[in-house]
Amino acid sequence: MNNDKGKFGHILVIYHSKDGHTKKMAEYVAEGSSEIPIIEIKIKSINEANKDDIYWADGIAAGSPTQLGTVSVEMKKFWEDLLPEWQKIDGKIGCAFSSEGGWGGGAELTCQALLTIMMNYGFLVFGVTDYVGKQFTLHYGATQAGEPREEKEIASCRRLGRRLAEWVAMYCYGRKEYNPLKGDYLRQY
Amino acid sequence: MNNDKGKFGHILVIYHSKDGHTKKMAEYVAEGSSEIPIIEIKIKSINEANKDDIYWADGIAAGSPTQLGTVSVEMKKFWEDLLPEWQKIDGKIGCAFSSEGGWGGGAELTCQALLTIMMNYGFLVFGVTDYVGKQFTLHYGATQAGEPREEKEIASCRRLGRRLAEWVAMYCYGRKEYNPLKGDYLRQY
Amino acid sequence: MNNDKGKFGHILVIYHSKDGHTKKMAEYVAEGSSEIPIIEIKIKSINEANKDDIYWADGIAAGSPTQLGTVSVEMKKFWEDLLPEWQKIDGKIGCAFSSEGGWGGGAELTCQALLTIMMNYGFLVFGVTDYVGKQFTLHYGATQAGEPREEKEIASCRRLGRRLAEWVAMYCYGRKEYNPLKGDYLRQY
Amino acid sequence: MNNDKGKFGHILVIYHSKDGHTKKMAEYVAEGSSEIPIIEIKIKSINEANKDDIYWADGIAAGSPTQLGTVSVEMKKFWEDLLPEWQKIDGKIGCAFSSEGGWGGGAELTCQALLTIMMNYGFLVFGVTDYVGKQFTLHYGATQAGEPREEKEIASCRRLGRRLAEWVAMYCYGRKEYNPLKGDYLRQY
Repeated sequence: MNNDKGKFGHILVIYHSKDGHTKKMAEYVAEGSSEIPIIEIKIKSINEANKDDIYWADGIAAGSPTQLGTVSVEMKKFWEDLLPEWQKIDGKIGCAFSSEGGWGGGAELTCQALLTIMMNYGFLVFGVTDYVGKQFTLHYGATQAGEPREEKEIASCRRLGRRLAEWVAMYCYGRKEYNPLKGDYLRQY
Repeated sequence: MNNDKGKFGHILVIYHSKDGHTKKMAEYVAEGSSEIPIIEIKIKSINEANKDDIYWADGIAAGSPTQLGTVSVEMKKFWEDLLPEWQKIDGKIGCAFSSEGGWGGGAELTCQALLTIMMNYGFLVFGVTDYVGKQFTLHYGATQAGEPREEKEIASCRRLGRRLAEWVAMYCYGRKEYNPLKGDYLRQY
Repeated sequence: MNNDKGKFGHILVIYHSKDGHTKKMAEYVAEGSSEIPIIEIKIKSINEANKDDIYWADGIAAGSPTQLGTVSVEMKKFWEDLLPEWQKIDGKIGCAFSSEGGWGGGAELTCQALLTIMMNYGFLVFGVTDYVGKQFTLHYGATQAGEPREEKEIASCRRLGRRLAEWVAMYCYGRKEYNPLKGDYLRQY
Repeated sequence: MNNDKGKFGHILVIYHSKDGHTKKMAEYVAEGSSEIPIIEIKIKSINEANKDDIYWADGIAAGSPTQLGTVSVEMKKFWEDLLPEWQKIDGKIGCAFSSEGGWGGGAELTCQALLTIMMNYGFLVFGVTDYVGKQFTLHYGATQAGEPREEKEIASCRRLGRRLAEWVAMYCYGRKEYNPLKGDYLRQY
């Protein structure tokens, strides 16, 4: 998805996936980011990503399976391995997504753990006020039991990616026309 | 539900409800506690409950609507008003439940906030490992978008109350036959 | 401190204080923001602040006493009263500070609760990677037992305000010279 | 410290330590537990501990260095490796401790993460209301910048271990004389 002509805002979607659920979420998050035309997107598993990808990115969406109510060992290791870069990457924009075994199983807490890790690197992190379907939102990141299948579940991932792209466009590149407050799409059901 | 003959374990279900959703949850939680025969149960809104109810209880289930990803002002006020009793009620057993506007809307975080408040009073707090339906659990307390309607949503509240009663029976009254590890009911779907 | 000529970035420091400790922190936070010359600053208690102050602000630092490991009733009420403005103020930049009764008493958790509330309004929230003295930092907001007295404690509040001003200057007004990564001040001890 | 005659309550102190700080904390926690005479104690690093130690224990104190505001990879791995035992060890009593690089550096959040992990296994978790020195407490677990050196820092670790032993004696063995509410030691400064 990279190196498209006329694109300059950089978004990295990184994920760790055990059963393919978080990978599926990552793909929808990336799709959502691509709704903003100026954004170039990389999507990588934590095995593929490295510190250069982090430096490259203006905004980062990080996804982990919910494992015991927090990030997986593998996802945590990715961020610990990045420690030599600490205090050199402050100010990036971050958000989170997670797939849990069942609703009520800790995906919100896992998103919060991911945001905590990113805050530790000096990132500005956010959730999304929008509802993307009846009784379905992503206030602290996109959460999901298992794999996203229903329309609202897919919309939740996409909205996260779109919002990240909007903030990057607006804050990193001064493109105020992408302020979601001016968006003409449905934000509440 | 009080003062039944032959009952001696004391459970208090307290709730704050705006739209009636958390109240409904509270009723199912109390029903779940009543599955353990030796348990006497009080269910009270925070307007009805007072410090004597807290002293009376061995175990407390507290429910709040999710308001901005944490407990409501009213529920918080109940616990702040209890501050003169601080360091006098350590060791009670606590758990939490919350109704949010939509899935992903902060109910897990609100349960965690309730547990944090109870830990501040020295309580021992818990969640439930059981699944009560397909992709439906209550690892950090019972969570719900809106009102509980579906069978698994109702089962989640009931299971929370039952588990609280089991721990009270086992830990406060030495009734090891109520250890849920010996239970003959379905704990995973 | 308002309406200085040539200033255009807007920072609001809001606080609730019981014993004057959080108020003292708020004053140091505001001092820190004033280290960035283009920033106009308002400092208000939650009794003085209203929704117009929120709309006015590009960046908001919110401070609460630690009460039972989370925000005080009064601080929570301020944000609940703001609910009619929900989904109209997304994208502001936010950070937190809190005074607790003793170290280990919940100030970090209270900062996290404040950040959670601000995320619920769609804010981008951050902590600070810098150390401001030996074994003293503010990774999730400025925390303090009692009143700030020691140099490092005061520096912690000031650094929070400065960082908020830096992000506002850089992200809201494109002033990349204020990127803290380019700062010539000590960031680690 | 094991197999002392006349001892029957079982406490396991497990830790991961990078710089020796958390190990030092673990030793003081174990000392605190030994203040209750009926308690047998094992202290093990996560490399030495295994599932049999978990089964053996009535109460578990878990300690991790603060790494990016949450548990270290190694500590998390210990608990993920235990997943085959999930739903078989509900109802143990748990608490947490953590050493961070500097105050405000995430040790409270790390304790909360440890408690979250233990709750996911169905444990009943707690903090301590006591103050152990001027402006020094452990409401969500014992926290420490670097190594415990000062008297209050050491007292904090010891008090955590003692409280764990008290709850185990009282709840698992019906020894109500160990209820800390009846203790004759100083609980507030």
